[in-house]
Amino acid sequence: MSSNRVKLILSYDGTDYCGWQKQTNASKPSIQETLEVALEKIFKTPIKCIASGRTDSGTHAQGQVVHFDAPKDPSRINFVRALEGILPGSIVTQSSEIVPKDFHSLLSAKAKTYRYRISTQSTGPTFLRRFCYWYPYPFDFKALQDLAPALEGRHDFKSFESVGTQVPNTVRTIYRARWIQKKPHLYYFEVTGNGFLKQMVRNLVGTQLYFMQKKRSRQDIIELLQARDRTQAAYAAPAQGLVLLRVYY
Amino acid sequence: MSSNRVKLILSYDGTDYCGWQKQTNASKPSIQETLEVALEKIFKTPIKCIASGRTDSGTHAQGQVVHFDAPKDPSRINFVRALEGILPGSIVTQSSEIVPKDFHSLLSAKAKTYRYRISTQSTGPTFLRRFCYWYPYPFDFKALQDLAPALEGRHDFKSFESVGTQVPNTVRTIYRARWIQKKPHLYYFEVTGNGFLKQMVRNLVGTQLYFMQKKRSRQDIIELLQARDRTQAAYAAPAQGLVLLRVYY
Repeated sequence: MSSNRVKLILSYDGTDYCGWQKQTNASKPSIQETLEVALEKIFKTPIKCIASGRTDSGTHAQGQVVHFDAPKDPSRINFVRALEGILPGSIVTQSSEIVPKDFHSLLSAKAKTYRYRISTQSTGPTFLRRFCYWYPYPFDFKALQDLAPALEGRHDFKSFESVGTQVPNTVRTIYRARWIQKKPHLYYFEVTGNGFLKQMVRNLVGTQLYFMQKKRSRQDIIELLQARDRTQAAYAAPAQGLVLLRVYY
Repeated sequence: MSSNRVKLILSYDGTDYCGWQKQTNASKPSIQETLEVALEKIFKTPIKCIASGRTDSGTHAQGQVVHFDAPKDPSRINFVRALEGILPGSIVTQSSEIVPKDFHSLLSAKAKTYRYRISTQSTGPTFLRRFCYWYPYPFDFKALQDLAPALEGRHDFKSFESVGTQVPNTVRTIYRARWIQKKPHLYYFEVTGNGFLKQMVRNLVGTQLYFMQKKRSRQDIIELLQARDRTQAAYAAPAQGLVLLRVYY
């Protein structure tokens, strides 16, 4: 018997959601429940979806990966089209694929790439405002370019974990961390790693911006990593600048 | 005595507005009333704003030009910053300038440039969905490139006027009309002219798409112009694809 496990690649505008995960008492719906309700309409029975990881409230995805087990043969259903008719325009199924039963969107993930967008223009970004952090302050691109590579490699990222979180192992490997200038006043921080702690990318961005502002060096990043102390890092950059670009398996 | 007339350049995301103009019975606010309420907060007295032209409900602007007469010396007010604190993020003042009393945003306008965005990707555009027309159908860029130049020049555009509208003179000059491929599945129609009839740009786009689909030629555009009959043109392309880029004085 062939597998009934379906892998979806989703993009979403996270602005009007409380994040991937269902939340009790949230004033906004979650991406997860919106998708599960849509799949229930297709299958007439509740469906449980598992994503490659949570995304924060207001954070976006270009290539979030989700899997679920279909209660009947999924091979004759075009999920891209079927979900398009049910989901709001802010959640789009980019592709669907039947995968072996041992594929797991969370546990099989090998790496992820995130992008964080910063607009430095003096006036508010009208069209990109849902998808960037507006930072109309002195911005030293060269300083950031110098800081980012210090994050690469296998490190204990406890200093960049969200306050109050507790995971047993905070060691992660960052394969690549780069600042890119996309347009005169638009910058991207792009980071690929084997895993990320809660709000880690936003903390990495906030800390780099703070270090840039304080003219601190690459060596200070290394010392902050060694400190393993969240209270020494700076603020988490706002959620709306962040996009989960891709998950690797 | 120096002038009290202020010229503002505004950009706005028109999605959540009923257009530039105040509408009675509209379910959404207008850009105009939102701006006038903000200026009233600054001056403590009602202010009347005049734009270079109306934009339709759902249509956007990158460089809409507006003027108003300040009830007191405007030279000490930084309107960009003052309005930033009052207006929602969907309306941004890009610049302000005190202009001579004979400047008039509508009557002094010499030309305007509009851009119309079309996404032809097979799945819905998640991040650009508020700012483009999603057209996941056969798309012949070369055919469109061939059609557009037939619109250039001084013509009677009555065939491209919105049904039911009556303006005495429907002759306008289009200086430039071009299709541009911006990305693999993203196209722009850009048009500059000395003036545009109601929904004219949307009608130009809808008609070109229809002619492309029907494999009609540049000659058919010329005949449609000569017919001076709106019922022979095709549908108006949806409002959300349109952006008023710039007004020339």
